[in-house]
Amino acid sequence: MKLRTIAAAVSLLGLLGAPALADEGMWPFNRLPKAELQRKYAFDPTNEWVRHLQRSSVRVSGCSGSFVSSSGLTLTNHHCAEDCISRLSTAAVDYVKRGFHAKTSAEERVCPGYEVHQLAEVNDVTARVEKATHGLDGEAFHQAFRGESARIEKECATSDELLCEVVSLYHGGVYELYQYRRYRDVRLVFAPEVDAAFFGGDPDNFNFPRYNLDVTFLRAYDGGKPAVTPDHLSMAKTPLAPNDLTFTSGNPGSTERLLTVAELEYLRDHQLIDVLLGLARYRGFLVEYGKRSPEAERVSKSELFGVENAFKALRGEHQALLRPDFFARLEANERSLRARVDDNPELKKKYGAAWAAIENAQRVLLALEPDISWIESPGSSRSPWAKTPLFGWAKQLVRGAEERTKPNEQRFEEYSDARLPGLSQRLLAPRPLNRPFEIAKLAFGLDQLREELGTDHPFVKQVLGKASPEERARELVMGSRLDDVAERKRLWDGGKAAVAASTDRMIQLALAIDETGRKLRGRYENELASVVRKNSELVARARFEVYGMTSYPDATFTPRVSFGTVRGWRERGKLLPAFTQLGGAFERATGRFPYTLPKSWLDKQKQLDLSTPFNFVTDNDIVGGNSGSPVVNRQGELVGLVFDGNIHSLGGSYGFDISVNRTVAVDVRAIAHTLDVIYGASRITDELSGTDKQ
Amino acid sequence: MKLRTIAAAVSLLGLLGAPALADEGMWPFNRLPKAELQRKYAFDPTNEWVRHLQRSSVRVSGCSGSFVSSSGLTLTNHHCAEDCISRLSTAAVDYVKRGFHAKTSAEERVCPGYEVHQLAEVNDVTARVEKATHGLDGEAFHQAFRGESARIEKECATSDELLCEVVSLYHGGVYELYQYRRYRDVRLVFAPEVDAAFFGGDPDNFNFPRYNLDVTFLRAYDGGKPAVTPDHLSMAKTPLAPNDLTFTSGNPGSTERLLTVAELEYLRDHQLIDVLLGLARYRGFLVEYGKRSPEAERVSKSELFGVENAFKALRGEHQALLRPDFFARLEANERSLRARVDDNPELKKKYGAAWAAIENAQRVLLALEPDISWIESPGSSRSPWAKTPLFGWAKQLVRGAEERTKPNEQRFEEYSDARLPGLSQRLLAPRPLNRPFEIAKLAFGLDQLREELGTDHPFVKQVLGKASPEERARELVMGSRLDDVAERKRLWDGGKAAVAASTDRMIQLALAIDETGRKLRGRYENELASVVRKNSELVARARFEVYGMTSYPDATFTPRVSFGTVRGWRERGKLLPAFTQLGGAFERATGRFPYTLPKSWLDKQKQLDLSTPFNFVTDNDIVGGNSGSPVVNRQGELVGLVFDGNIHSLGGSYGFDISVNRTVAVDVRAIAHTLDVIYGASRITDELSGTDKQ
Repeated sequence: MKLRTIAAAVSLLGLLGAPALADEGMWPFNRLPKAELQRKYAFDPTNEWVRHLQRSSVRVSGCSGSFVSSSGLTLTNHHCAEDCISRLSTAAVDYVKRGFHAKTSAEERVCPGYEVHQLAEVNDVTARVEKATHGLDGEAFHQAFRGESARIEKECATSDELLCEVVSLYHGGVYELYQYRRYRDVRLVFAPEVDAAFFGGDPDNFNFPRYNLDVTFLRAYDGGKPAVTPDHLSMAKTPLAPNDLTFTSGNPGSTERLLTVAELEYLRDHQLIDVLLGLARYRGFLVEYGKRSPEAERVSKSELFGVENAFKALRGEHQALLRPDFFARLEANERSLRARVDDNPELKKKYGAAWAAIENAQRVLLALEPDISWIESPGSSRSPWAKTPLFGWAKQLVRGAEERTKPNEQRFEEYSDARLPGLSQRLLAPRPLNRPFEIAKLAFGLDQLREELGTDHPFVKQVLGKASPEERARELVMGSRLDDVAERKRLWDGGKAAVAASTDRMIQLALAIDETGRKLRGRYENELASVVRKNSELVARARFEVYGMTSYPDATFTPRVSFGTVRGWRERGKLLPAFTQLGGAFERATGRFPYTLPKSWLDKQKQLDLSTPFNFVTDNDIVGGNSGSPVVNRQGELVGLVFDGNIHSLGGSYGFDISVNRTVAVDVRAIAHTLDVIYGASRITDELSGTDKQ
Repeated sequence: MKLRTIAAAVSLLGLLGAPALADEGMWPFNRLPKAELQRKYAFDPTNEWVRHLQRSSVRVSGCSGSFVSSSGLTLTNHHCAEDCISRLSTAAVDYVKRGFHAKTSAEERVCPGYEVHQLAEVNDVTARVEKATHGLDGEAFHQAFRGESARIEKECATSDELLCEVVSLYHGGVYELYQYRRYRDVRLVFAPEVDAAFFGGDPDNFNFPRYNLDVTFLRAYDGGKPAVTPDHLSMAKTPLAPNDLTFTSGNPGSTERLLTVAELEYLRDHQLIDVLLGLARYRGFLVEYGKRSPEAERVSKSELFGVENAFKALRGEHQALLRPDFFARLEANERSLRARVDDNPELKKKYGAAWAAIENAQRVLLALEPDISWIESPGSSRSPWAKTPLFGWAKQLVRGAEERTKPNEQRFEEYSDARLPGLSQRLLAPRPLNRPFEIAKLAFGLDQLREELGTDHPFVKQVLGKASPEERARELVMGSRLDDVAERKRLWDGGKAAVAASTDRMIQLALAIDETGRKLRGRYENELASVVRKNSELVARARFEVYGMTSYPDATFTPRVSFGTVRGWRERGKLLPAFTQLGGAFERATGRFPYTLPKSWLDKQKQLDLSTPFNFVTDNDIVGGNSGSPVVNRQGELVGLVFDGNIHSLGGSYGFDISVNRTVAVDVRAIAHTLDVIYGASRITDELSGTDKQ
């Protein structure tokens, strides 16, 4: 859903344009509201406390995580590593189903394409970016911005072990250069059975009470050996209790708390509906596809989890926007800022037209959207091209071959020099495919393409010709060898000549439609994205001038800290307690999916202390991307592992409501106890407690 | 979607609260706007012209149709008879696929459960209904209304050959008693292959140009012989041309052009989204289910067609409501009426509070909706109970047994004496079931039930217990013999005692949840439906008093006439012509579903006159329910057969836009020519031309 991320480019302050509410906020490490922490919690973290938490925290596979030993042991969620666990599985051995446990270091298995990023440094580059883009508009603005960002990132990324990103905070109010230490060799150490990790499945997802061991251990390697990670989190020595102060550290993906009303209306009335309808249909297909055979179920399960999760999350977001009181607050907020701007002739002259420009861009978007989403689809989850990695690879090979012939600063940003190592790492990571599943998914996508654009659309005619969606999908998938890493490498290294000479059907398709896609991408960047970016900056500046900078920037999948306390909430008049216990899982189990506990649990039920705290909730402010975030106490010790938000947290994309918005985490006591009693994973528990080196 | 029909209870005039626009309107036969016809078209139909059209028109299977010979031959759409064609098919002979052609009278096959209704008389009963409900409110109002309607209908339905319905027009402004002649023996005469009837399938549905022979001939029987139908339509002698005046006669199902803004908002922000998401997911499931095997495809195809059609239709309706200009017009309309009411103290006293009462009822609906839809589901397409006829039968048997012990006027309306013959006719009509498909559908529905109400909902626990949705579905379907007509008859005749003693698993489930369902239905009727009905009447009266009665009532699935002209429309700047020709079908065919022409067509391509007009569009005002409507010219001769509306017609539920709203019909010349050349159906063409009796 890149459209969402790009459409999300706007404004400056919190939901009400007023200083942040207590406990609201996803704060960059260098912008912690220390006065607020001191005032409310009498807590004054030292610079060392902050630095240690930052360097113990990592980004991994679209999620968050933390180092939990001095040898690169990394704690994250099972659902964050599920793609790796699934890729390592075969028809014969299904690690998703039966779990994975490396009893020795040698048994740890490489997660293809996985990287761990640890934030090393942050530097302000606002002046450089502003100088480069000064006075520019539209395509010129975009080119200048991309060019300067590419230069800055290239200067910074002096080795493949460094990842550098220019991050736009406050929607362009501030630009910072984030430099990460990249670990490109990540291995799987331990994962429980999916029945334990995802107990309650989709029905319980985003709900509470919960009973999930949504835990996986990975390990970062460096030069073929476990990475040396002196900064890591230790297990808490004091037991966590209700009302305790908690911090989460992680990478919230994106929030849209500063969007203009026109953008929110577009999301509410068009984009979220379109995406939800596509997901609902795809979900119906996937569930039934899995019933073809046990193998079909195995290969499609991970995709289904993702779709169910996305559906429920976006449905919650949409329902928040449909609440008249919620939307009215957002409207009032904008009205009040615009009134302040309009009342001041100088401000009005500088910023007064920005909202109308953004509103107008939404109308352009509405007209361009079907073609953009279905043909070029910058990340659109709906398009057929997102349905199979074969096409994704083909597009990267075709476009990458062309882009790499251009100067760095003239390329699409994903092909800039600073991003190429990551791109080729992902492109060349092994990923086994199941051809029948790829055919079925692509046929599904091509059928939707025809429906959405219409049988008479030239692009539909070009792609389908006289074939049915299923025939074309079969021909493309069976006629492609791109699932072979060596073939991808040959084409990547061979560049334009190799691509042009390829007889691979998927490459030929990607070549045939590349020009149409590029034109659409160009229109999208120039008529839309750059207009929104430019005017969002103006709105951001207007907010600076009117309110000052007293709050946190929207989430950007960069490291943030939130703080809050352990506590339940009131649901339909009933107070839900903050903790569940291990025993609750056995009570809830029916023996039928998704309420099946693994045999390993049932076998050890008698040996377990069933009163051990299992899952808990806090009022920390998180969103998607925070999965796998460590929860730490005042001492900076690990007390929990974030794996979900409650149903009310889904509106958190647009605003935070502390009365009901909750973070859901696994208690470390349950992790330690189950590793010990159920899994006999003493190698890990020793490492966690630091006794492995004694 | 009964919720929609009930929520649709409101107000009085056309979209703008002003007199109807030219060519807008679905007029009852006794309320034709003759002055308008005279003024605009210089056409003054005689009473005999009107009576003849009325008596030639029929209602059949949720659709419309017409008598086209003096021996009960009935013309309707293939998609209206598809359920019959499908039920007569077996694994060995698929009439949907290969078509059906009774070459002799003896080969005509009974369509199980089908009835043909011909409107005989209409009488005003407003005074009786108003007297009975005078001064009443809430439950008392509802009981009185139901009681008086049941009495009126019972007095009228003096034999099983008569069907009587009290119809509320203008949302309670007028009540009329409609008496129909019922033909309960309906047989299949001719149907083309589905590839010809539904050429272009879902992608072309609601689009134009079209090339569909969406035609089926049925025959009404009376006493085991073809019915005598002196009133019937003759084939046109003058060729239809652009700009010709056309009439459609049929049964538009429901429009909501007089809803209050609060009700429209509820539809837009909640109901339509919920229903569309449910349909999208169900559709994904059905498409993939059909891939299990050819047999699975055969048994699920009809359900899939229905779901795809409903999805596209409701999506179009929703998109109309999401258009800011469209919705603003509806809001302005209401504002202006309310201002007129508020400015007049007397009107304000009588009617001023009605809008707020309806708005408040929407809030009640929002809170009640999940339980209503998922537990009692008065027709909700989403609920698991709508997914299999086995449950529908069980519920009718259980509830019917109980209701029939009560006095007529205290029963739920569907069990009133006047409705029982129709109900038992449908209940006892044979319908072959495919158990694997019933299990899969019910499992799908139970899974959704758990998701929507939540694992911890008492009803979910009652229905599922410790079983998975699939296990429970299997147990219910395999443990039921209700697909045996004799068993249904035994339970229906046996009443409460037989039902209570039944060991049928589906009957036992229906019994176990009946009390919960009845309570919800009661709350729905008393807190919602009656409040809306009562206050809609007040709004209707306010409109009468402010504007006078100058327009047509909302559609009620009763016979209506619309008038208009043959003409294309402008789409993205391009004028689409009004007619297509037979040759276009051959050009569009790819040989791949859904663009496959049947072999019979390909074989006869050379013998066909490819310039024969095939499909055409007019600006007549129709909606769902009008499928199968005859199109007639000034002479009252048959020129076409309505089978669709264009994509813009879907907003027609809420308002009519003559610039783009179009009716799509099969030209009778294509019907005659293909019957003759492709199908060699001389028995039918002779009958159509009246030469069979010469």
